[in-house]
Amino acid sequence: MAGEAYLDYPKENIKSFLGEHPIEALFIPYAGVTLSYDTYETKVNDRFKEIGHSVKSIHHFENPIEAVLKAEAIVIGGGNTFELAKQLQNNKLIEPIVSKVKSGTPYIGWSAGSNMACPTIRTTNDMPIVEPESFNVLNLVPFQINPHYLDAHPEGHGGETREDRINEFIELNQNIYVVGLREGCMLKFENENLKLIGERKCRIFKYNNSPKELSKNDDFNFLLK
Amino acid sequence: MAGEAYLDYPKENIKSFLGEHPIEALFIPYAGVTLSYDTYETKVNDRFKEIGHSVKSIHHFENPIEAVLKAEAIVIGGGNTFELAKQLQNNKLIEPIVSKVKSGTPYIGWSAGSNMACPTIRTTNDMPIVEPESFNVLNLVPFQINPHYLDAHPEGHGGETREDRINEFIELNQNIYVVGLREGCMLKFENENLKLIGERKCRIFKYNNSPKELSKNDDFNFLLK
Repeated sequence: MAGEAYLDYPKENIKSFLGEHPIEALFIPYAGVTLSYDTYETKVNDRFKEIGHSVKSIHHFENPIEAVLKAEAIVIGGGNTFELAKQLQNNKLIEPIVSKVKSGTPYIGWSAGSNMACPTIRTTNDMPIVEPESFNVLNLVPFQINPHYLDAHPEGHGGETREDRINEFIELNQNIYVVGLREGCMLKFENENLKLIGERKCRIFKYNNSPKELSKNDDFNFLLK
Repeated sequence: MAGEAYLDYPKENIKSFLGEHPIEALFIPYAGVTLSYDTYETKVNDRFKEIGHSVKSIHHFENPIEAVLKAEAIVIGGGNTFELAKQLQNNKLIEPIVSKVKSGTPYIGWSAGSNMACPTIRTTNDMPIVEPESFNVLNLVPFQINPHYLDAHPEGHGGETREDRINEFIELNQNIYVVGLREGCMLKFENENLKLIGERKCRIFKYNNSPKELSKNDDFNFLLK
């Protein structure tokens, strides 16, 4: 979140999601483009250590598929969504991650890592700097997330607003919900229950419906149907 | 351009580019998602009529490939770059447009239509709302354009700046130039000469080089090598 230390606001939520027992989570740094995997790992690990956990990056493992299959938790950080999807696909990690998470291993993703949890990367904000094999990704939830959702529009800018972009998405993808997730908010899915965490509302888009603003006390399970 | 009537600022440049003789240009509206092709055609045609020319949209032709091959000029408007690339590819128009333009037919594109002129769509700002066959497009020029280039960054936004995004692009695409084209500016290629039109500078990015700000009196032909 802008104006705060990296990954600071969600750390207590990550702590309670991972539980009391100290966990060494598998970290996937593939979205990082202009920082090294080592640097990225350190940045994330420093924060995880503050909450009694740690991460080890997948680039240290000789066999990344095996690393996924043995992971206690899987953590995917932000960066470029296209590069992340491409590396996950090139390394044949999509299926292993899906089966691991569906069997109960905790998954944590932010920014590009939250885009990965969706059926496709079609609601990313990132520039398509590389071409992945496919736009299909983990499909852990049946709706799309638009992370860093913002209402502001830079002055003097002739391009589309974020809402314009999502309206184009729902025009061509009429059967799927999009959750515009504002800074400082999270979605948590646990025990068949989906919740919003954070003090700001999120904005829900669906074709032929007016956008809806929902807050943390609202029911979000309609998104799972 | 924000704060001005649609397609107003470039109209005199379009007029001089197309010449004295009234032309009926072929208009490709495929980037339009939330407006109909008819509406889009009218919007563009109204402006072209002000300068003694006109457009006819490709959706009125039974055979779109033949429409391209017979066109006096080809005009591609803005909207969503991914949808535009997908429709051009689905309709098998990439090769016909390339051969037509390389044999001397004028090409005019703005926003998503300028992304089409590049080797790939990898420097678009648009959301990847649909998955095209490929990111490769017309390759009429050997460099990438980033249209609507902007320096501002919305307050409270934790995502990347435009410059961050392009820096990620050049990190993974080290042999190609990117031209950040600010609102109200154009690139014109005619008689083997590339020029910037407009009162603002454009920002040139290349791997391992500091970004350069060039203005209309500078030489741009290094981009063609």
